[in-house]
Amino acid sequence: MTARPLFDNVVLKPIVEEEKTASGIVLPGGEKEKPQQAEVVAVGPGELADGTKVTMQVKVGDKVIYGKYSGTEIEISKDEKYVVVEQKDIKCVLD
Amino acid sequence: MTARPLFDNVVLKPIVEEEKTASGIVLPGGEKEKPQQAEVVAVGPGELADGTKVTMQVKVGDKVIYGKYSGTEIEISKDEKYVVVEQKDIKCVLD
Amino acid sequence: MTARPLFDNVVLKPIVEEEKTASGIVLPGGEKEKPQQAEVVAVGPGELADGTKVTMQVKVGDKVIYGKYSGTEIEISKDEKYVVVEQKDIKCVLD
Amino acid sequence: MTARPLFDNVVLKPIVEEEKTASGIVLPGGEKEKPQQAEVVAVGPGELADGTKVTMQVKVGDKVIYGKYSGTEIEISKDEKYVVVEQKDIKCVLD
Amino acid sequence: MTARPLFDNVVLKPIVEEEKTASGIVLPGGEKEKPQQAEVVAVGPGELADGTKVTMQVKVGDKVIYGKYSGTEIEISKDEKYVVVEQKDIKCVLD
Amino acid sequence: MTARPLFDNVVLKPIVEEEKTASGIVLPGGEKEKPQQAEVVAVGPGELADGTKVTMQVKVGDKVIYGKYSGTEIEISKDEKYVVVEQKDIKCVLD
Amino acid sequence: MTARPLFDNVVLKPIVEEEKTASGIVLPGGEKEKPQQAEVVAVGPGELADGTKVTMQVKVGDKVIYGKYSGTEIEISKDEKYVVVEQKDIKCVLD
Repeated sequence: MTARPLFDNVVLKPIVEEEKTASGIVLPGGEKEKPQQAEVVAVGPGELADGTKVTMQVKVGDKVIYGKYSGTEIEISKDEKYVVVEQKDIKCVLD
Repeated sequence: MTARPLFDNVVLKPIVEEEKTASGIVLPGGEKEKPQQAEVVAVGPGELADGTKVTMQVKVGDKVIYGKYSGTEIEISKDEKYVVVEQKDIKCVLD
Repeated sequence: MTARPLFDNVVLKPIVEEEKTASGIVLPGGEKEKPQQAEVVAVGPGELADGTKVTMQVKVGDKVIYGKYSGTEIEISKDEKYVVVEQKDIKCVLD
Repeated sequence: MTARPLFDNVVLKPIVEEEKTASGIVLPGGEKEKPQQAEVVAVGPGELADGTKVTMQVKVGDKVIYGKYSGTEIEISKDEKYVVVEQKDIKCVLD
Repeated sequence: MTARPLFDNVVLKPIVEEEKTASGIVLPGGEKEKPQQAEVVAVGPGELADGTKVTMQVKVGDKVIYGKYSGTEIEISKDEKYVVVEQKDIKCVLD
Repeated sequence: MTARPLFDNVVLKPIVEEEKTASGIVLPGGEKEKPQQAEVVAVGPGELADGTKVTMQVKVGDKVIYGKYSGTEIEISKDEKYVVVEQKDIKCVLD
Repeated sequence: MTARPLFDNVVLKPIVEEEKTASGIVLPGGEKEKPQQAEVVAVGPGELADGTKVTMQVKVGDKVIYGKYSGTEIEISKDEKYVVVEQKDIKCVLD
């Protein structure tokens, strides 16, 4: 099952980095603050809810930085957690 | 009796999943938090309250994810509970 | 005397259902929460206060569901209580 | 001296009804809550402050219902109290 | 020195009326609440900050009623106190 | 080094007047409240952040009155303090 | 790795000046308040999230002053800290 976004929504897969404590033990990323880096998984058709056409400036596979606290977390299946954000919440693409 | 939505409103039938407790007893979904998955039951004509024409990007039968806390709950008859949301509250379609 | 609404306003006659207590006594609807179902009594000309033309998507006699807490209650005479709502506060028509 | 309103402003003369106490004594309306019925006394030219042209949907002499708490109270002379409201604060005309 | 307003700003000279106390002593108007009547002293060019052209509906010499608490008080010299308001804060002209 | 403003921004040099205490001692203006008079030092190109073209209604050298508390204070060098305001925060030009 | 901004976003490298204490010891800038001067590192394509085309009025290498507290801090690698701001948060260019 895949999620097909509406409007200028973009489905993101957050990039969770491993983290070391002072003692050198690797902690799983889940305890860290909400990530700001993500990979684009799906891109909306570029027509806003008020009918305006917009250019989608990101594509599937792009690494992006988006506003922490933006978007809606969705869970497709148990191991697949995504965030749906409006394109305007994406600040830049990392090349 | 059926509900015919105005504007870009969409009538949704929330999908309530069964849930098991630790002991394995199945609880009816009603005690869970407000669902985020739903099936589209009816779709508005795509003219907003300010006269703007918009494309309706969902169709009857689509499984969608919508913003928790969005919309107005309506009860057509005792066993039929629906939520009316504006199209913009729908984030994506699950294919 | 009748009320002729301006703009995209719609005059609604709320539908108040009778209600039984546990003991089987019928209570007049007035003690219940503010109704969400109503019948359309009059429809505005479809020109908004900012000059925009809009399509009126309801007609006199339609049964509608509108957002609880929307609109202005008006009293034409002692037995006639109505609510004036903007069309956008009407969610759907019940066919 | 008369008040000539700007924009889509409308000068209203509130209709204050007499009121009887339980004892049958007639009290002047002034002690009642702010009236919602009024008669249209003057109508603006129908050009908004942002230059938009709008249709004035009320005319001098119309009895109207307007949103309680709307508008600015003005006093032309000691016995003449009026309220200036924007047209959008008028909900309907009573025919 | 004169003040030439920008946009749809209007320079107003507030009209402060004398006031008698119960004892018949005339008090200077300055102790009264902020005035709502004023005379138009200068009128802006009618182009808003976002480039929209608007009609200036008042002219120099008009007596107007404006929203109490609107505008910016300016002092050209010691004896000249004015208020600069946007045209939308003027409710009506007194003819 | 000079500051070249963007959009409809205007760089202002506040006019700080000397002030006498009751004893006749002249105090430097810096202890007074934030000034409202200023001289225009630089003017933006007249294209807003949303692409709208606007007319710049002030020019370098104009004495203007602007809204107290508007704008961003900038310091080019130790002795040069300026305020950058949007044109809409300028109320009038003093001729 | 470089950051390519979307919309009218601009990637800025804040300019942190050294600071002396009263005793003449040079302190690294990091303890100072958030800087307001920055150098432009990358510039977005000039299409806003709502589809509007805008002129990008700054270019890579410009020294700019931007609103303190604006934007999103991003960290490309350990030694590279940037701020992404919308163009409207940039007040002027220092020539």
